[in-house]
Amino acid sequence: MANLWTRQHAGSRNDSVTDLPSYLSGYFDGEGCFTVSIAPRRTLRVRWEVRPSASVSQNADRSEVLDEIQQYFGCGTIRPDPGDKTVKWEVRSLRPLLERVVPHFRQYPLRSSKQQDFERFFEVCELMARGEHLVSAGLIRIATCAQAMNPSGRRRYHIEEILETLNVEMKA
Amino acid sequence: MANLWTRQHAGSRNDSVTDLPSYLSGYFDGEGCFTVSIAPRRTLRVRWEVRPSASVSQNADRSEVLDEIQQYFGCGTIRPDPGDKTVKWEVRSLRPLLERVVPHFRQYPLRSSKQQDFERFFEVCELMARGEHLVSAGLIRIATCAQAMNPSGRRRYHIEEILETLNVEMKA
Repeated sequence: MANLWTRQHAGSRNDSVTDLPSYLSGYFDGEGCFTVSIAPRRTLRVRWEVRPSASVSQNADRSEVLDEIQQYFGCGTIRPDPGDKTVKWEVRSLRPLLERVVPHFRQYPLRSSKQQDFERFFEVCELMARGEHLVSAGLIRIATCAQAMNPSGRRRYHIEEILETLNVEMKA
Repeated sequence: MANLWTRQHAGSRNDSVTDLPSYLSGYFDGEGCFTVSIAPRRTLRVRWEVRPSASVSQNADRSEVLDEIQQYFGCGTIRPDPGDKTVKWEVRSLRPLLERVVPHFRQYPLRSSKQQDFERFFEVCELMARGEHLVSAGLIRIATCAQAMNPSGRRRYHIEEILETLNVEMKA
């Protein structure tokens, strides 16, 4: 009986009552990640580069949904993670983040506290769109947002370090 | 602007266009698990007990969706996992599995290969509803299904071991 059902329905996913955007938000709530990393970049006047990223990782043998996510958003790359057996869909460019990723999550918000990370992420993307990441005051605001995101995540540069170099810059 | 949006929308989740059943299937696709474990039980004639389980684990600080899942399905327990910092929503009783969990995932199927686990899980639940887990032939069929599920998962008893004891039983 189970096999009969499988045969009847497995190939008819397009007839499903599932709402794909809602499904993908749910998937992202479990497996996705919004991050803003800040790394030294000597060629920039503020000496720090802001790198926003929206990503979803999954075991390589269960990565079908990443293909659907890439197709749905129409952006992002899918690459194997060299550190483990996972693959990762990731968008790092500001324009597709602002034009495709952010509007989706405003319409289909996350239902866990990860939504708070999205709101900070959204704020950083908006600030970057106005060029705020290229001036000290804007960078401080962005670094404060980034610091509050994913508190349990790894962080290569802490806000104190960034603020210290900005003060040097500002005093000069 | 981001904060303004947050204030306007954060409290209005009920007005969201999100389809909750689709969202929860997406969440389950990432974080959920269907398992069928088989453990020795001397008091049963076949000497093995079949234990189906549908569960979702999440870090304790992001477990809001587990409450929604429990409310949506109207069954299952939420307990801290003693091994780590996660909490787990889990349904182990056959009746709520068959009456609430299985019908949901037939209507809102998983979109990754985890759907194959669901189909085997569904088959095991149907077999159990017919009492097949209490006779050798049915147990063999169930053990074969269970063996094919979550191939990367831990398994305390392998099918060979179960078959061996059943053969002893059947010869006696």
